[in-house]
Amino acid sequence: MNPLELTALAGDTICAISTPQGRGGIAVIRVSGPQALDIVQQRWRGKPLADMATHTVHLGQLTDTAGDCLDQAVLTVYRAPNSFTGEDVVELACHGSTWIQQQVIQTLIDAGCRHATAGEFTRRAFANGRMDLSQAEAVADVIEAQSRAAHHVAMNQMRGRYSDELKSLRDKLLHFVALIELELDFSEEDVTFADRSEVTALARDIHAVISRLADSYHDGNAIRNGMPVAIVGQTNAGKSTLLNALLCDDRALVSNIHGTTRDTIEDTVMMGGTLFRFIDTAGIRQSSDTVELMGIKRTWQAIDKASVVLWVVDVTSADTSMAHNILAHCSGKALIVVLNKTDLDDDFAARSELNDMLPEGTPVVAISAKSEEDIEALRSLIVETASLPEVDSDAVIVTNARHYQALTRARDAIARAISGLDSGLSGDLLDQDIRECLHWLGEITGEITTDTILSEIFTHFCIGK
Amino acid sequence: MNPLELTALAGDTICAISTPQGRGGIAVIRVSGPQALDIVQQRWRGKPLADMATHTVHLGQLTDTAGDCLDQAVLTVYRAPNSFTGEDVVELACHGSTWIQQQVIQTLIDAGCRHATAGEFTRRAFANGRMDLSQAEAVADVIEAQSRAAHHVAMNQMRGRYSDELKSLRDKLLHFVALIELELDFSEEDVTFADRSEVTALARDIHAVISRLADSYHDGNAIRNGMPVAIVGQTNAGKSTLLNALLCDDRALVSNIHGTTRDTIEDTVMMGGTLFRFIDTAGIRQSSDTVELMGIKRTWQAIDKASVVLWVVDVTSADTSMAHNILAHCSGKALIVVLNKTDLDDDFAARSELNDMLPEGTPVVAISAKSEEDIEALRSLIVETASLPEVDSDAVIVTNARHYQALTRARDAIARAISGLDSGLSGDLLDQDIRECLHWLGEITGEITTDTILSEIFTHFCIGK
Repeated sequence: MNPLELTALAGDTICAISTPQGRGGIAVIRVSGPQALDIVQQRWRGKPLADMATHTVHLGQLTDTAGDCLDQAVLTVYRAPNSFTGEDVVELACHGSTWIQQQVIQTLIDAGCRHATAGEFTRRAFANGRMDLSQAEAVADVIEAQSRAAHHVAMNQMRGRYSDELKSLRDKLLHFVALIELELDFSEEDVTFADRSEVTALARDIHAVISRLADSYHDGNAIRNGMPVAIVGQTNAGKSTLLNALLCDDRALVSNIHGTTRDTIEDTVMMGGTLFRFIDTAGIRQSSDTVELMGIKRTWQAIDKASVVLWVVDVTSADTSMAHNILAHCSGKALIVVLNKTDLDDDFAARSELNDMLPEGTPVVAISAKSEEDIEALRSLIVETASLPEVDSDAVIVTNARHYQALTRARDAIARAISGLDSGLSGDLLDQDIRECLHWLGEITGEITTDTILSEIFTHFCIGK
Repeated sequence: MNPLELTALAGDTICAISTPQGRGGIAVIRVSGPQALDIVQQRWRGKPLADMATHTVHLGQLTDTAGDCLDQAVLTVYRAPNSFTGEDVVELACHGSTWIQQQVIQTLIDAGCRHATAGEFTRRAFANGRMDLSQAEAVADVIEAQSRAAHHVAMNQMRGRYSDELKSLRDKLLHFVALIELELDFSEEDVTFADRSEVTALARDIHAVISRLADSYHDGNAIRNGMPVAIVGQTNAGKSTLLNALLCDDRALVSNIHGTTRDTIEDTVMMGGTLFRFIDTAGIRQSSDTVELMGIKRTWQAIDKASVVLWVVDVTSADTSMAHNILAHCSGKALIVVLNKTDLDDDFAARSELNDMLPEGTPVVAISAKSEEDIEALRSLIVETASLPEVDSDAVIVTNARHYQALTRARDAIARAISGLDSGLSGDLLDQDIRECLHWLGEITGEITTDTILSEIFTHFCIGK
């Protein structure tokens, strides 16, 4: 990170509404920066801010630029460095009318504040060493979390469990580097100080930890973004109608024209405390339409990525021509066969034929997506069938795509070092791989991060955090 | 007020989310009642609440019923009686995820809190003598206020200006009672102690103050609920289309069938910092349809109540048969003539005929409601034309229908006392009128209020205030 950028960032005093948008009993406006106390003092009628101890609250009046009373408010002072951002912070709890909230922000800007950008308070907390980058990112995840599992993982990350694990990895890598560099220092004497078998064991240990973290992303992604459930089947089987029924929403375009859905359509819904991401796919059929064929290709990809596959079968049609094709792609997946359109026909002619094709024990449920009959039974079955990730209270689970990418690169680097050790590669070449591994881990914690990456990260925050 | 009810109310400890609904950087959960500190202590990992001084903030962890960490939170303690409610209050600022907010409320309820009803914190503040009823009601008005004027009036009321005025009235009335009762005490001796001309002057003074307050409700209502603007005209002139254009919304049903609108449809919009309430009305025409005639009757009533009347004229029709009728009803009102449908015809045949009918200086604006052409010009004209109430920083303006009703009853009572004085009515009968006047004023401040009235008042509050 460029220290110059941080200095420039920290120079001014920022303000924003930190509570959710809209009207409520109270709203909290946060002010942070070197001038926070001076600026708020200009708009404060009550005990002088200079006389307030840190971590105390005071009742008084907020005034507008003309000195008229805007609101009776409660002011909290946090003096640097003992604040969320590490700077002087003033929090103003005022009445939650949208008008007052706007006016307070306006009067603070008139008095010298700048309106904070998204996530700027957390960015300052990171810049001032109050937390590392993975912890800062977890703040946004904590706010986004919609389920117990997602909240638990994000909270662990925010509280530093992940950072501790990375720190321990970093220590091991630095020990590795020290061993290798010792060897290099004495390389002219052609002495191999480092016991290469000890070094190799260390490298394998590092590789195992990084691999475990990278592999946890599969579960982490499911926890954070929802367990992927692909809805597949022949055209006109009612897949989009089923998606809408599961989401309780008119998310997908529905018609009885074969091949209506071409893109994959996704949306999430909470079921049994777990977030599920349903992916509606293009119907499978023999087609010569180029666009439709592209859609069908995506359907196979969606099955590959899914944790659960819902194969929707139209009971009014005896057409099972694509069944073998679909089953072949679902091999090894948690599959649920959904017999749809029971409102039209409850005596499914091709049932025994289909049963013969299915792997032993494949759950089959009959529903009507259109009349939403037995959708609840299907929901329960999906929750049962999905192998939900175990969220052990101590396990570190990676949920962030950026981290996953850095971890896979770090894993590649340490793997190269291991094969280098195996093939007797010289210390200086090994050193390069280890330093690269360190670099990628440093990118996660923010020790090695460009301003562009930081901006990208904090853009996804809400204003006021 | 029944003290028993207050005791029952104050017995338990309540909690609610006080910040606006939804996701944000932070959310504040308020806990109030005799057990507030004990209950929160059960879910708090950090410095013990018993050791915290009032008006101090502390970082710690909120836990769920199982003892797992729910969130890192900032806790503020307010010890009774120095809190908003006058009870022990704990405020918990946690991360603003909807999941965390729900879980914190859940864990507090499990630990012994009751979820607060709408406005219950403010109701407790009233019950504990932290504010009178008119001030408590103003809290909701402050939160609802959408304009500078509405905010200013509500803030004055919340800060007690109105209460002071009522208290001064009450003192005058009690002085009046004292004078009259002195006379009564000595009535057997047939001595008139009270100088009846002094008493009459006092009664007239009281009457004048109550009248001023009651009369201010006209402005107060416009400030709080919006300046009423009636949209009138012949059927099919495009009134509903104009309403939708002014509101930027599809509020009213629009068709080209004459007489589509039968009810009056109202909605508010902010223009030039003032809230306007637009009232779409049934079109005026000769009709024998009973329902439609009822609608037309309402149109005339809407004109009576309006501060500004928009008379919409269809330029594609030369029909001015109802013009005289409409103009007669608009006499003395701020009138704007809106020539509509300029997109269809910009050469209005009946224009000179219409001009001859209009009072000198009546503003005329040509628009197309359908294509939203020149709607902005019309908006500016409405803001200019409306005689906005002057909001003097010291004037007490009544905005509350309940207060208005109590004030008119108090005015009637004091008026009866005055005419009683004029006709030499005996002291005991005068005393009854004055006590009734005191009663109605006491209903505003809450000295004399039933639990039913209180419940009705606080129902309109948001939860968490």
